[in-house]
Amino acid sequence: MATIVEITDPTDPRLADYRDLRDVELRKHLETEHGLFLAEGEKVVRRSAEAGFAPRSFLMAPRWVDGLADVLATTDAPCYVLEEALVEQVVGFHVHRGALASYERRPLPSVASVLTGARSVLVLEDLVDHTNVGAIFRSGAAFGFDAVLLAPRCADPLYRRAIKVGMGAVFSTPWTRLPDWYDALPDLSAAGFTTVALTLADDATPIEDAVDGVEKVALVLGSEGHGLSARWEEAADRRAIIPMRAGIDSLNVAAATAVACYITARR
Amino acid sequence: MATIVEITDPTDPRLADYRDLRDVELRKHLETEHGLFLAEGEKVVRRSAEAGFAPRSFLMAPRWVDGLADVLATTDAPCYVLEEALVEQVVGFHVHRGALASYERRPLPSVASVLTGARSVLVLEDLVDHTNVGAIFRSGAAFGFDAVLLAPRCADPLYRRAIKVGMGAVFSTPWTRLPDWYDALPDLSAAGFTTVALTLADDATPIEDAVDGVEKVALVLGSEGHGLSARWEEAADRRAIIPMRAGIDSLNVAAATAVACYITARR
Repeated sequence: MATIVEITDPTDPRLADYRDLRDVELRKHLETEHGLFLAEGEKVVRRSAEAGFAPRSFLMAPRWVDGLADVLATTDAPCYVLEEALVEQVVGFHVHRGALASYERRPLPSVASVLTGARSVLVLEDLVDHTNVGAIFRSGAAFGFDAVLLAPRCADPLYRRAIKVGMGAVFSTPWTRLPDWYDALPDLSAAGFTTVALTLADDATPIEDAVDGVEKVALVLGSEGHGLSARWEEAADRRAIIPMRAGIDSLNVAAATAVACYITARR
Repeated sequence: MATIVEITDPTDPRLADYRDLRDVELRKHLETEHGLFLAEGEKVVRRSAEAGFAPRSFLMAPRWVDGLADVLATTDAPCYVLEEALVEQVVGFHVHRGALASYERRPLPSVASVLTGARSVLVLEDLVDHTNVGAIFRSGAAFGFDAVLLAPRCADPLYRRAIKVGMGAVFSTPWTRLPDWYDALPDLSAAGFTTVALTLADDATPIEDAVDGVEKVALVLGSEGHGLSARWEEAADRRAIIPMRAGIDSLNVAAATAVACYITARR
């Protein structure tokens, strides 16, 4: 059973994991350096525990303790209980579903283990927006994708906002980081995947044709601003486009991914 | 030519349109009551002007004045020029592409005029997230939708973030508010549209079948949390679902809309 610890001082050093949650740059450093991630809201806190992550601590207003009693029963981690207004002072905004937890990250699995048995894979290059990363995990799960691979600089799927938008898909979908950016796509080809890069290039073929009849597909997505790097665009086996009305510059990357996943799932 | 006004006091009352841009509730009231909307970034400022909106004023750091000279040349509105750090004090965050403008809203067109000649229409009920509204406008534009209709309580497409995420689609796509929530869908049916509600209801048919061969389609989308109201779900001509993997609760509404628009565009 978690130890309930009532705290009345918002500057208490035991709350360090929960400071200034809206300061993205600060949080990126803090969470990476301490090997933690933050779960926000009763549902995400519960899903994180169910996915087998070990809690470092919990932080919640009194009225959330009973609802999470089943989760708290499974751990010896401290549960810091603060009045709602104090929670807001610590994290920097009003937490709508006032429960938070800090979990230990786990070592990332190898690319080979993530790809074992996979037939449809998403590969994300340098996406910067956590909302997009979360939405892409969710779309991949909805359309039966088996795994997600991230380039070294892609935004963190365990960032609070990505987990929330992803509705837990980041826990149910195997994923890892690609250790080698330069050869990532040739390596996937060598592993039997046809790499299909979503692009606006002139020589791109409609995505329906690009994935037609392909057994093992890796859909490759670029960053929000500039799309794929030249290296990845060239290294992909195929370059594909989602047919759009003339004169429209493009879809949002999360919207494009949803459409591409839908099409690929029906190949 | 706009009048250049250098300002050194961030509390100057002439900057009232630009206060606390991150305070969503404050901004909603302020912008509606004063009949204005905010354009953020050089590209959006320019697109707003090109779309024929009348500027109330501009606010920018000195280095943006030259780049927007063509826009400033077309108006007599004041252009407030402040050092970058002062801009940040006024709006409440660092403006990445440091130009802003406040534009006058225009009266919304009638539903009938928005529907004239339209073959594919999006109908949004009570979406609350401006990012989703913007992304949906963008997806609709990409797949050739002709108009967007909004329920009375749907989030504002002219809110700063919606415009930005929508990449200007809110200017290029005819849209308006539905004055009558209760009879909105029967009215569309009477106007010759088949209303197709996206839902997770048990009796829903796959969206491919629901739109197959339909000449005039109105795709109906519900809010992020609870989906469509019972009234709209019952009043729609057809209830449709995007086929997904078993056990997945749903797609994000913007992702679902992108897929539904893609499918509907190919009917």
